Amino acid sequence: MKKFVNDPENFVPDFMAGIAAANPDLLEAIPEHQLIKRRNVDASKVAIVQGSGSGHEPAHVMAVGPGMLTAACQGPVFAAPPVDACYETIKSVATDAGVLVLVNNYQGDRMAWDMATELAEAEGIKVKQFHINDDVAVQDSLYTVGRRGVAGNFFVMKACGAASENGASLDEVLAIAEKVNNNVRSMGVALTSCIPPAKGDPIFEIGDDEMEVGVGIHGEPGRERAKITSADEITKSLYEAVQTDLPFESGDRVALMINGLGGTPPAELYVIYNKAAQLAAETGLTVARNYVGEYCTSLEMAGASLTMLKLDDELEKLLAAPAETATRIF
Amino acid sequence: MKKFVNDPENFVPDFMAGIAAANPDLLEAIPEHQLIKRRNVDASKVAIVQGSGSGHEPAHVMAVGPGMLTAACQGPVFAAPPVDACYETIKSVATDAGVLVLVNNYQGDRMAWDMATELAEAEGIKVKQFHINDDVAVQDSLYTVGRRGVAGNFFVMKACGAASENGASLDEVLAIAEKVNNNVRSMGVALTSCIPPAKGDPIFEIGDDEMEVGVGIHGEPGRERAKITSADEITKSLYEAVQTDLPFESGDRVALMINGLGGTPPAELYVIYNKAAQLAAETGLTVARNYVGEYCTSLEMAGASLTMLKLDDELEKLLAAPAETATRIF
Repeated sequence: MKKFVNDPENFVPDFMAGIAAANPDLLEAIPEHQLIKRRNVDASKVAIVQGSGSGHEPAHVMAVGPGMLTAACQGPVFAAPPVDACYETIKSVATDAGVLVLVNNYQGDRMAWDMATELAEAEGIKVKQFHINDDVAVQDSLYTVGRRGVAGNFFVMKACGAASENGASLDEVLAIAEKVNNNVRSMGVALTSCIPPAKGDPIFEIGDDEMEVGVGIHGEPGRERAKITSADEITKSLYEAVQTDLPFESGDRVALMINGLGGTPPAELYVIYNKAAQLAAETGLTVARNYVGEYCTSLEMAGASLTMLKLDDELEKLLAAPAETATRIF
Repeated sequence: MKKFVNDPENFVPDFMAGIAAANPDLLEAIPEHQLIKRRNVDASKVAIVQGSGSGHEPAHVMAVGPGMLTAACQGPVFAAPPVDACYETIKSVATDAGVLVLVNNYQGDRMAWDMATELAEAEGIKVKQFHINDDVAVQDSLYTVGRRGVAGNFFVMKACGAASENGASLDEVLAIAEKVNNNVRSMGVALTSCIPPAKGDPIFEIGDDEMEVGVGIHGEPGRERAKITSADEITKSLYEAVQTDLPFESGDRVALMINGLGGTPPAELYVIYNKAAQLAAETGLTVARNYVGEYCTSLEMAGASLTMLKLDDELEKLLAAPAETATRIF
């Protein structure tokens, strides 16, 4: 297994300890509940939490900090966090203003957070839930009824985090989550599979000249298994699937994200961005903000996804607001 | 080839176009000279330039911007830029305050920049050169006489960029480069090879259970080909090689970087950081700043390097100064 791993069963605690160790002033880890939270939680502001299987870093524990999530918990690689971790995550940051739980739409995550939310409500904690489902690839999937939540999740976290910092109420932050989710669409493609450390084997098989178009972030099947084509052709298929779905139309202002799935280097992501920006211009879109990097990964999977968010003044301002998390470079 | 590539011969122009397209206010691309420069060059400040083969992104064209490089050029993947690109890079940002050329110690890069520097001097441009050689793995290597320059280069760029913004003279910025280089050490390990698009084949062969300890960023041999061990054991071997070389000693304040080589996901880099921070504490070092991410890559190579820089008040302040480049997330 070509990985930096100690005991595969401890992979998640090991990297979460590393994240906390690298950010001692910003973050606090509570290993027994598999959660990471902000050191300073402002009780007057809405807390935003999220949690899912590991292997998607920086989502979600590397997205905790001022202007983003208030806390996050993670389960084993590609498996939902246990109910008690979700419950403790809510409880650890419960504020008078309330807690918004963001959940990417997967059955396992929804079940865990539904039960955790009920437990928290029973204790008198003010809490609401929102489900993110930005992946246009397939209607239902291996682990979902309805569309999956993928990298569009970043924009929900960012906008909600900024709204909370601005003092928005729980209902107002929830409305922002809905607005982002209603206006964001994504689709991904995988060139290789990936190996969860505790499994030790690839999560799916794929030929040397094949790609999975519309892949899920746990390797779920997408729209088709196809022969690898040029970067421009692949980008065009992702762009068209995303653009026509909302649809994004001439005159729209958008945020455009090219997200790496973990094993694809920065240069290739910019090859994709270059074509995607051209296609957006041809559609008559204005790319007001762009994001090229790793936002929602699948371990070391080689691949990328394209996400577009239709902007208005409110969303653009929220995306531009400052944030500080474990994910920072320079 | 499991890559997002169009015509492999156009891989470098394609991704450089993407970087420029994603940063229209910050950066200007001059494709005919394979260079990217800051839009606003302050003639009263020292310009800092660098350039090498492509495939190491974010080094160097993604490191151009206020507080970092003033301009950078890139050759084909893993091949030095041509002399005329180097010369045009110097010329494009030549200021009254002068130009500092940073060169990672490889024969090809040194030859190109030596000739470009001579050409620039002949035109009356005030220019000095500095060679970076932080890699402790081997004394001489496939493409070097003397030690190689690797991820420690980031700290040289960052400190020099900040010093220039502060109004330091050419000699003062050069002295900062020397100070950083004298106090920074690195070593890397590769778990897999990588495939330059125009070559289409791996740059070296490596077994399923093997790693190259002390690998160069072009896949050059390091200290030994060994069986893959645990993340903690690999980290210990990198740490000890780096720590004992300077040496870093009890009471030292350091910056600690875990750099991903391109195909290793964020979670694994934090597994390495977790152990490296423990080892630093055991040595009596204080990690005043840390860096976990991709700073100097080898395309999609799975692997990582460990860099430590001994800090004093001056260097710590320069590293903490603001910078803005194409490499930013959140």
